[in-house]
Amino acid sequence: MTTAHLTRWERTAEWPLAALAILFLVGYATPILVPDLSDSASTWCRVITWIAWAAFAVDYLVRLALAPSRPQFIGSNLLDLAVLVLPLLRPLRMLRLLTLLNVVNRYAGATLRGRVAVYVAGSSVLLIFVSALAVLDAERYAPNATIKTFGDAVWWAFTTVTTVGYGDRFPTTGTGRVVAIGLMLGGIALLGVITASLASWLVQRVAEVEDKSQAATRADLLALSAQITALQKQLAVLREPPPEH
Amino acid sequence: MTTAHLTRWERTAEWPLAALAILFLVGYATPILVPDLSDSASTWCRVITWIAWAAFAVDYLVRLALAPSRPQFIGSNLLDLAVLVLPLLRPLRMLRLLTLLNVVNRYAGATLRGRVAVYVAGSSVLLIFVSALAVLDAERYAPNATIKTFGDAVWWAFTTVTTVGYGDRFPTTGTGRVVAIGLMLGGIALLGVITASLASWLVQRVAEVEDKSQAATRADLLALSAQITALQKQLAVLREPPPEH
Amino acid sequence: MTTAHLTRWERTAEWPLAALAILFLVGYATPILVPDLSDSASTWCRVITWIAWAAFAVDYLVRLALAPSRPQFIGSNLLDLAVLVLPLLRPLRMLRLLTLLNVVNRYAGATLRGRVAVYVAGSSVLLIFVSALAVLDAERYAPNATIKTFGDAVWWAFTTVTTVGYGDRFPTTGTGRVVAIGLMLGGIALLGVITASLASWLVQRVAEVEDKSQAATRADLLALSAQITALQKQLAVLREPPPEH
Amino acid sequence: MTTAHLTRWERTAEWPLAALAILFLVGYATPILVPDLSDSASTWCRVITWIAWAAFAVDYLVRLALAPSRPQFIGSNLLDLAVLVLPLLRPLRMLRLLTLLNVVNRYAGATLRGRVAVYVAGSSVLLIFVSALAVLDAERYAPNATIKTFGDAVWWAFTTVTTVGYGDRFPTTGTGRVVAIGLMLGGIALLGVITASLASWLVQRVAEVEDKSQAATRADLLALSAQITALQKQLAVLREPPPEH
Repeated sequence: MTTAHLTRWERTAEWPLAALAILFLVGYATPILVPDLSDSASTWCRVITWIAWAAFAVDYLVRLALAPSRPQFIGSNLLDLAVLVLPLLRPLRMLRLLTLLNVVNRYAGATLRGRVAVYVAGSSVLLIFVSALAVLDAERYAPNATIKTFGDAVWWAFTTVTTVGYGDRFPTTGTGRVVAIGLMLGGIALLGVITASLASWLVQRVAEVEDKSQAATRADLLALSAQITALQKQLAVLREPPPEH
Repeated sequence: MTTAHLTRWERTAEWPLAALAILFLVGYATPILVPDLSDSASTWCRVITWIAWAAFAVDYLVRLALAPSRPQFIGSNLLDLAVLVLPLLRPLRMLRLLTLLNVVNRYAGATLRGRVAVYVAGSSVLLIFVSALAVLDAERYAPNATIKTFGDAVWWAFTTVTTVGYGDRFPTTGTGRVVAIGLMLGGIALLGVITASLASWLVQRVAEVEDKSQAATRADLLALSAQITALQKQLAVLREPPPEH
Repeated sequence: MTTAHLTRWERTAEWPLAALAILFLVGYATPILVPDLSDSASTWCRVITWIAWAAFAVDYLVRLALAPSRPQFIGSNLLDLAVLVLPLLRPLRMLRLLTLLNVVNRYAGATLRGRVAVYVAGSSVLLIFVSALAVLDAERYAPNATIKTFGDAVWWAFTTVTTVGYGDRFPTTGTGRVVAIGLMLGGIALLGVITASLASWLVQRVAEVEDKSQAATRADLLALSAQITALQKQLAVLREPPPEH
Repeated sequence: MTTAHLTRWERTAEWPLAALAILFLVGYATPILVPDLSDSASTWCRVITWIAWAAFAVDYLVRLALAPSRPQFIGSNLLDLAVLVLPLLRPLRMLRLLTLLNVVNRYAGATLRGRVAVYVAGSSVLLIFVSALAVLDAERYAPNATIKTFGDAVWWAFTTVTTVGYGDRFPTTGTGRVVAIGLMLGGIALLGVITASLASWLVQRVAEVEDKSQAATRADLLALSAQITALQKQLAVLREPPPEH
């Protein structure tokens, strides 16, 4: 098995898996957002999430089979395995949707900074939406819980990801707290990326505007080198006896 | 219709629209800040905000008419349309006041970093003032609300925009929470710009102070190139037989 | 009057004014930290703060008299005037103590980044100490206040300047809130400087470590230019007829 | 005594001291995490922490004895002395565990940025774990305390280090507040390093991608210089009379 097979499989599976992640999102979100769901509908939702899980598991096994070195594959894809096996990390299966951002970027044909902006915006929306769902799922029926509606959960997610943290809503269950810690860490990463992008943009703009004197480039030196080569040729001609003298 | 017409209109309308934004600010703020306003005064305020709205709508339609490509104009001015049409986004009409910062910068004749500082300061003041007004409007008569005076609202806006978030004051209504989320996002952007400006300034200052050896510039290389050209001329003279020898 | 006189005065007054700022700090802090102070001691404290105020006022007037252009001096020293005249800004008189950091830096003979570190550390300590004093002064006897001891005030100042903001302690009076807003803004500036210093340090270190190929410097080009000049001299000699040939 | 002896001792002692720090961690954490520990076990824990303390003290004294200049050694190792002598700083003895990160880095053979990532991750985990233990130790039996289990303490540590600060849990004792302030300062440093690393990475990536024209390097100039030297040799040959002509 070679890396080429693995790459071809990943390309082929990219789109179906993104579609399954959307299905998973629907199957995961519906019972949380609609508490008084009919029995058949809630069964359907459960079936959909299981199908998506099975597909993700098949994808993992195929990639494992195609990998040139299996122990190395397992080592560098521990998160994938954890997301498959640990029920607490179920919501992370929706991370597959980040694949869609690649497509947006391919059409936008953006610069590095533009692509960073698309990823930051997409990840923020996904992070807030998925965290709000997961926390609502964990907290809703807990005693003394302060997060009992989806509106509350979204509001809590925004106050957390921006590190404002009023404290009018906060998780009280263990699961809810684990989700919250994930959201905080994600929030810090996003804030860091935003600040860093602005800093990198400003550093570059200031350098462009204020550095009147442009730096010497390789191309400039090549031109100089050509001049000297011309000189050498002139000298070589001189070396020979003057023609009719 | 060409882009030139559009630019000319935007230049002409810039100042009247900024004046209307101030009028809008007065008409919007007065009934919020003075709760027991007389009936006639509150009617006047409402009339003023409607006039400003009509002027903003006319401006939008004129720009739409002058745009070279209308679908593209609508696509890249979706925020303007949303601010006009959605009642919840009314306070954003005051963003026109940011135009005034352009004028400050034109007189200050500032560097890029100076202009960033003026925008950060101006946007912060506008953001905090407008958010405090909008939250007070939404929360004042809500049951269990904690923001009931303009002083409370400004204090809340500062604790939010700096991400301190004590939690002694926080919005409880849907509208208030939407305003708060806008303020948090604005706060993060402002914090990012402040940190980024400081970083860009430090990177440049350190480079100036510690790099004793200046980088080679294009101008230096042009001087070298001229020297070699002189050499070539000297050689060319040498090539000819010594004059009368 | 010339700028030279102004500079000489500022140099001469630097140390006495820093000493007076320490006296002011003692006279300001003692009645706050020791609530049941004897009448005579509290009178002494008041006298000391008035003497310091008078000295600061004299310093301002002397600098105004020595300034080449008085309107310009007033314009660019508005903060000094406000600190003198507005009672609410009294604690800011201790900013004179930042002068002492200049001395630390002069002895440490530090790099730009070292000097930034000394200023950040010194300003943070001064900011937290002065804010805690000012808030305690404003809040201590307010109804429903949560900050009633100096320990509470320092704890509150740390939770605010780091933007953690638990909300177990927060100011409730107008004066206390103004102090808190000042502390928040100061905290954001300090956080920004810390992050920016780290970023600038990392940018430089990474550039040093990873850029194996050093950039071409002016000195390198001067060496090249000298080589070409030598060539030109060699050619000039060649131009002349070979000596005894 | 020379610096070589000191360095050799530090190399030799590095591993045993890291092992003792782990033992100290066990002896420190066990009585906090297991409140109803048997008497003999809790005696053992106390003995272990005292042994570790003694070893750290011996290490300090040996290094002091080996130092070329003792006053200078004391001056630049004040934190080590404080950690040994002040009981409040006991948890900081576990900082020795940061030594282990050096080993991880030695095996990973990472770049500067990779090493920064390992240190950030390792320090964060250590900081949160040790702070949670120390706060739990200080708060557990305090009246009105909100942090009474290890789960609460870890949750509180995360809300603090990310500066979210809901305020559902916060320390109320003096010791707990000192630990919290340390955690806040550590959190700010970590956030700063994360943002700075991202910024430095982005600045470099953008520079790589967008700067099509490579900067002129010293190596390029050396090549040019060699060309000119060759020219000079050519000219020197020309100077001599043409051989047998």
